[in-house]
Amino acid sequence: MSDIAPAEFRGDLPIEEFRRYAAQLIDWIAEYLAHPERFPVVPRVRPGDVAAQLPPAPPARGESLADVLADVERVIVPGTTHWNHPGFFAYFSISSSIPGILGELLAAALDVNAMLWKTGPAATELEQVALDWLRQLMGLGPGWFGVVNDTASISTLLALAAAREAKPALAIRARGMAGRADLPTLRVYCSAHAHSSVDKAAITLGLGHENVVKIGVDDAFRMRVDLLEQAMERDRAAGMLPLCVVATIGTTSTTSIDPVGEIAELCRSEDVWLHVDGAYGGIAAVVPELHDLMDGVHLADSLVVNPHKWLFTPVDCSAFYTRQPEVLKRAFSLVPEYLVTREQDEVVNLMDYGVQLGRRFRALKLWMVIRAFGAEGLAERIRWHVQLAQEFAGWVRDEPGWELCAPHPLSLVCFRHAPPGTSEAEREALNARVMHEVNASGEAFLSHTKLGDRYVLRLAIGNIRTDRRHVARAWELLRAATAKSPAAGPGARS
Amino acid sequence: MSDIAPAEFRGDLPIEEFRRYAAQLIDWIAEYLAHPERFPVVPRVRPGDVAAQLPPAPPARGESLADVLADVERVIVPGTTHWNHPGFFAYFSISSSIPGILGELLAAALDVNAMLWKTGPAATELEQVALDWLRQLMGLGPGWFGVVNDTASISTLLALAAAREAKPALAIRARGMAGRADLPTLRVYCSAHAHSSVDKAAITLGLGHENVVKIGVDDAFRMRVDLLEQAMERDRAAGMLPLCVVATIGTTSTTSIDPVGEIAELCRSEDVWLHVDGAYGGIAAVVPELHDLMDGVHLADSLVVNPHKWLFTPVDCSAFYTRQPEVLKRAFSLVPEYLVTREQDEVVNLMDYGVQLGRRFRALKLWMVIRAFGAEGLAERIRWHVQLAQEFAGWVRDEPGWELCAPHPLSLVCFRHAPPGTSEAEREALNARVMHEVNASGEAFLSHTKLGDRYVLRLAIGNIRTDRRHVARAWELLRAATAKSPAAGPGARS
Ligand SMILES: Cc1ncc(COP(=O)(O)O)c(C=O)c1O
Ligand SMILES: Cc1ncc(COP(=O)(O)O)c(C=O)c1O
Repeated sequence: MSDIAPAEFRGDLPIEEFRRYAAQLIDWIAEYLAHPERFPVVPRVRPGDVAAQLPPAPPARGESLADVLADVERVIVPGTTHWNHPGFFAYFSISSSIPGILGELLAAALDVNAMLWKTGPAATELEQVALDWLRQLMGLGPGWFGVVNDTASISTLLALAAAREAKPALAIRARGMAGRADLPTLRVYCSAHAHSSVDKAAITLGLGHENVVKIGVDDAFRMRVDLLEQAMERDRAAGMLPLCVVATIGTTSTTSIDPVGEIAELCRSEDVWLHVDGAYGGIAAVVPELHDLMDGVHLADSLVVNPHKWLFTPVDCSAFYTRQPEVLKRAFSLVPEYLVTREQDEVVNLMDYGVQLGRRFRALKLWMVIRAFGAEGLAERIRWHVQLAQEFAGWVRDEPGWELCAPHPLSLVCFRHAPPGTSEAEREALNARVMHEVNASGEAFLSHTKLGDRYVLRLAIGNIRTDRRHVARAWELLRAATAKSPAAGPGARS
Repeated sequence: MSDIAPAEFRGDLPIEEFRRYAAQLIDWIAEYLAHPERFPVVPRVRPGDVAAQLPPAPPARGESLADVLADVERVIVPGTTHWNHPGFFAYFSISSSIPGILGELLAAALDVNAMLWKTGPAATELEQVALDWLRQLMGLGPGWFGVVNDTASISTLLALAAAREAKPALAIRARGMAGRADLPTLRVYCSAHAHSSVDKAAITLGLGHENVVKIGVDDAFRMRVDLLEQAMERDRAAGMLPLCVVATIGTTSTTSIDPVGEIAELCRSEDVWLHVDGAYGGIAAVVPELHDLMDGVHLADSLVVNPHKWLFTPVDCSAFYTRQPEVLKRAFSLVPEYLVTREQDEVVNLMDYGVQLGRRFRALKLWMVIRAFGAEGLAERIRWHVQLAQEFAGWVRDEPGWELCAPHPLSLVCFRHAPPGTSEAEREALNARVMHEVNASGEAFLSHTKLGDRYVLRLAIGNIRTDRRHVARAWELLRAATAKSPAAGPGARS
C-alpha cells in the first residue's frame, strides 16, 4: 500500500444545507404529489437522451446541492416514467403515499443495517410486528413467520430454497447438486400463467429452467389441479422428485386465482412444498369481503405479498411468510465468528433467513402506512380500485367492437379492440398501435400481454391517486385511437 | 370472489399533512445529525422490549401522523442501534450523509420501478452513469458494465451465477444440476478469510457449501496463490471442475488484500471466472494514493464494491461490475410477453441482469453523494479514516499489555489486550468482557473476530462523523475497562 497523504476531518455537509435543501425538496415533492398529472406518465425521451445530458466524468470538487437539485429537475424528472401518475395503468400500477415516503426518509436518516438484532433491535422487532399486522389484515390465522425482502423475486427464491432444504436427506446445502449420482431431477410446478420470477428462481437455484413444469389452465386461467396431479405422477414414474408447487393469487397477465385449497391438499398428500405467490393480488385480501382470496393459504408452506405493489408503500418492500421458519433458517443460516452475538439464540437475526446479509429498515414505512390509513382506510382504497376496474370492464363490455378477454376478479382488466371481420394478426397490429398511441398521449400508460395467440391490452388500477375520471379518460383515449384507425371497422378499410 | 361493497375515492393523505410532518421530520433529522452522540450507540433494550411496546393488532382507523412520529421517538429511536453515531466502530462502520438522505427521499417520492428502461429511463441511464463515475473514481480503466444491487451478497451471487453460465456446455440454466450424470462437481475458491456471502451464494446456487474451497492465507491473511494452484490441480485430478475464484480486497476480519493480479493470471490460464469482493475495502481506491488497491482487477471478470459501506450512501447500494455483461445477461434474461417493449434491443433493461425484477432508483443517492462531495471530497474523507486508524494502531502498539493482531492497511485495526502471563482462554474472556463493557457505555461500539485461536477486537472507522476525539475516547474506554479488570495484570489477580 502506498503511503497516504495527511488528511483532516471533514465530516458531512453543514446541517444548514440539510435544512435548506430538504425544505426545498419537500416543497417540490408536495407540488409533485399535489399535481401528479403535471408530467406525462411516459416521458418523451429516446434511449440515451438522459445519459447524454450528464457529464461523462465525476466532478473533482463538491458541487452545491442547489445545482444537483436543478439537474434533477432539468434531466431526471423529464426522463422519468411517473409511477405516481394516476393514469399509470401498465404492468401493475403501484404508488407511494405520504406516510410511506416519510418512512423512507426516516429510514435513510437512521441508516440502520439490521443484519443482526443487535445492529437494529427496533428494525428487527418492528419487522415482525408490521408483518404480523399485515397477516391479520389479510384475514390469515396465526402461525406465520414473516420477513421483509426487497422483491417478490427474492421471496419466491427463498421459498424454493426452503423447499429444497425441506428434504434434508438430499443434503443439497452441504453437497450441492452437481456431480452427484444419487440425486433425482427436482421439479417445480406452476401454472402457465405464473410469473417469470418462478422461472428465474429455479434457474438461479440450479434446478434448471426445463424443470419448471408449466401446468395448463382452465378457461379462467386458473391452474388445473387434475393436470398438476398427472404431471407429478408422470414425473415420479420417470424417477423425478416433485419439490415445490407455486400457486398464484393474481397472475400477472390476468389476475387469475389458482385453486389454492385443492392444490394444498394435493401438495400435502404428495409431501411437496406449496408456495403461494400473491405478490399483487394477495394484498387485496385486506378488504374484508375479499378475505376469501386467502382460502386454502393456511395449508401452504410459504406466501409472498408485496406491500410495494398495492399497499402504497414505496418500492421496495416484499412480505415473505412461512409456516416453517426453521427450514428457512436451516437453508440460509451461517454465522461466522465476526457476526456472533451473545443473544443470538434468543432473538431473530434477520440475516439467518435469506441470502442477503445487509438489511435496510423497510418495515418502518410499512408500519407507518398501516397506521396512517388504518385497516379500514386501506380496505377502502383497494375496494375502490376493484370497483373502478369493474366499471371499466362494463364500459368495454357494452361497446361494440371491443371485448373483454379474461375474468377480472380484482383491479386488472384484459380487453381489446376486435372489429368484426379482422384477423388475429390485424387485431394484434391494431391493438399494439392503439396502445402506443394512448401511451404517447402522456395521459395514460397501458401495457399488453398475450393470452394464447390473442394480443390483449391490460388496464391495471392500483395507484392511490387514480380516480374515476382517469379511468374514463383512458377509455376516451382508447376509443379515439381506434376511431382514427384504418382498421377501425370493415368500412374504413377501403 | 364475493361481491364487494361500494366504495368511493379516498386518495392519499392531504398534501398539507405531508408539508407539516415532513417539516417536523426534517427538524428532527437535522437535530439528530447535528448531535449524533445524543443517543447511546448500542441501545439499552433487551430482546422483546420494542415489540412489547407496540399494539399486537393494527389500528382499525387511520391515526394521525403526529401520533406515529411520537411513537417513533418513544419506541423506535430508543430501540435503535445508531449506525450514524461517530463511536460506531463495529463490523464495518457505515453512515448516511446529507446528499444521500435527500437522494433517498426523492427516490421514495418518485417511486420509480426501473425493471425496464421504459419504466424508468432516467433511473436506468443514471445507474450506468453513476457507476461509470465510481469506476473512474477508483482508477479502473474502461470496459466495465455496472448494475446496482441491494447488497454485496446479491452481487457475489450474480458473479457465481455468471461463472456457471460462462460454461455454456454445462447447460445449467436450462437443465439444472440435479439428476445429471454428465456434470462434474463444481468448485469455488476463496481464502479462509473471505466473507460468508461467498458461502451463502454457493449454497443458494446449489453448488454446495462443501464445494467452497477455503484457501490458506499467509501471515498477513492474504490468499496464498501457491495453495490455490495446488487446490485447483488436486480438484481437476479428482475430476472436479474449478468454476470461480473469489479474491477479496479488504477481508471482513482484518481488511487483508488478496494478491489479485497473481490470482487473475492463474484464473486466466485455468479458464476460471475471477470475482473480486471489494465490498468495503475496494471503495478506498477512490483515494488516488490507494488506486493500487485495484491492481490486477482489470484482469478480473467481476467486481463488487458497496457505496453503502464506505461511501456515505444510505443502505442499500451495492455496485456490481462485470467485463462480461453478455454472460450475466445470458444467465438471467427472461422476457415474458407482458414485459416485452419495442426498444428492448437498444436499451439496458435492468431486469435482464439479475434475479430481481423490481428495482428501486438507488443510483439517485449515489449520484447525489458523488456530486455533493466531488472526487476530492470523497478521497479526503476516506483518507482521514485511514489516517485515524493508523493513529489508533500506533496508540495500541505503544501501550504495554496491548498488541496489534494483524496488518491494518485501511481503516480497521485488529488488536487485543494481552497481559503477559495470561493464557489464550483468559485473553478471550478478558477481551470479550472489555468489549461488552465498552459497548455498554453507549459511547463506542466495537466488535470482535477470531484469528486462528486468538479472540481479537476490531475497531473499524468509516463513519463520516467520526473525528479523532471519538477514536481517542474509545481508546480511553478500552483502557479503563482493563484497569478495572481482575486480569489486568498479574498483580491484580490475587
Ligand atoms: C468483504 C465483504 N463482502 C461482502 C459483505 C456483505 O455485504 P452485504 O451486506 O452488502 O451483502 C461484507 C459485509 O460486511 C464484507 O465485509
Ligand atoms: C404475480 C407476480 N409475482 C411476482 C412478481 C415479481 O415482483 P418483484 O418485482 O417484487 O420481484 C410480479 C411482478 O409484477 C408479479 O406480478
